[in-house]
Amino acid sequence: MTADALPPQTVRSAPDRLLAVLAAFDHAHPALCLTDISRRAGLTLTTTHRLVGALTEWGALERDADGVYHVGLRLWEVAALAPRGLALRQVALPYLEDLYEATHENVQLAVRDGAEVVYIEWLSGRSAVGVHIRVGARWPLHATGVGLALLAHSEQAFQDQYCEGPLAAFTPYTLTDPVRLRRELAEVRRSGAAVSSRQVTDDALSVAAPVRGRDGRVTAAVSVVVPHATAQVPALVPAVRLAARGISRALGWQPEAR
Amino acid sequence: MTADALPPQTVRSAPDRLLAVLAAFDHAHPALCLTDISRRAGLTLTTTHRLVGALTEWGALERDADGVYHVGLRLWEVAALAPRGLALRQVALPYLEDLYEATHENVQLAVRDGAEVVYIEWLSGRSAVGVHIRVGARWPLHATGVGLALLAHSEQAFQDQYCEGPLAAFTPYTLTDPVRLRRELAEVRRSGAAVSSRQVTDDALSVAAPVRGRDGRVTAAVSVVVPHATAQVPALVPAVRLAARGISRALGWQPEAR
Repeated sequence: MTADALPPQTVRSAPDRLLAVLAAFDHAHPALCLTDISRRAGLTLTTTHRLVGALTEWGALERDADGVYHVGLRLWEVAALAPRGLALRQVALPYLEDLYEATHENVQLAVRDGAEVVYIEWLSGRSAVGVHIRVGARWPLHATGVGLALLAHSEQAFQDQYCEGPLAAFTPYTLTDPVRLRRELAEVRRSGAAVSSRQVTDDALSVAAPVRGRDGRVTAAVSVVVPHATAQVPALVPAVRLAARGISRALGWQPEAR
Repeated sequence: MTADALPPQTVRSAPDRLLAVLAAFDHAHPALCLTDISRRAGLTLTTTHRLVGALTEWGALERDADGVYHVGLRLWEVAALAPRGLALRQVALPYLEDLYEATHENVQLAVRDGAEVVYIEWLSGRSAVGVHIRVGARWPLHATGVGLALLAHSEQAFQDQYCEGPLAAFTPYTLTDPVRLRRELAEVRRSGAAVSSRQVTDDALSVAAPVRGRDGRVTAAVSVVVPHATAQVPALVPAVRLAARGISRALGWQPEAR
């Protein structure tokens, strides 16, 4: 069921209705009028008007001169506290910049949310590849370098379930065979780096490494994306691993203590 | 009245109560247990439990293994759509990186929210100055370079009201005299750049320039912060102005069309 076909609001709770207003906004719909919000949230216009009013007064939404609503600065300020969002990105940024200086390639930081990676940061390098990622974008785990790094270090039960599929193919090279995927994940754990070659687009290759938190668990992954045709994988692996270790240490990880 | 001394919840509306739970989180309190949230939001434990449950289920909050709540990734994803938050930052980042490459100094991007600047981005340079700004931090307009650039281009009525004060002093050099502040704002408009010298801390100087949106109005400001003792203001002004113009063009500003 899509957001356009939600049932009437009668059975939902007050918090759910307010959150439905926020959820009406996404990357395809960053600016909405009251009628759009009402339709996408599945709420009456009267209820929408009241909730949007409360959200606007608080600063979670902002209304422009044309009467169109956008996500507001106040929500962004609260969201900046998210440990897996801006807070993680703030700790990681110097290391991502170093990785960018060392490679001048596309550099990204991602975390796992369920069966997907969410990109937290993306620094654009000189190489134009067919992958266009924005901050906040999502992608399935098995196709991307960061996704393979995160999947390889997730709980065994989750890995087993994920590998059973279905595993979507984006190119003829996407890993869609459970046996091959499991073998790849073992290799990622052994080598400390994940390589995704032409699995997302025909022309791109990414090299990723896991980032560990204070408790030693993998909480994020860092990667570079380069054109497949000229990729120097052996040169990229140490740089990406170094950046991942630097971020891990900044997060409080102590390899000696394990 | 502080958040610690809010009145009982009885008179507040359902949306206000939910937003009070979100507002319980700030830079000094990024991680809270249920009792903390209840106290800071001024809500009963029962109501807090119900609202936190709804927010956690939606992903606006996340609960860690110790039962402590943090701001969640889902809220960060919605907030990433804020035109004056991550969305602006996403457009500006390449130009901020260029400014950083050109100067290797602290580079920042800020917007105005009422009588304050809010920092949207901060790239740390080689110079250690006494100013420690984090993304999401706020500062009064008259003390900082970005604040002066934003104030100088805000509506005249707002400028008049702001200049009347009170104007807080952070160092002996902070502009607290309305006449001097007005003169400074005129100079910012004339020169296209704002210089704040030792107004925030004794050792720092910032050079800022305004960023214009598609409609030509000033929507943000970009700046570098350097040690006052060795600051080369004439060299910094063109670099900062260039970065600000680059961001303005990327936002759709067309100087020719004015």
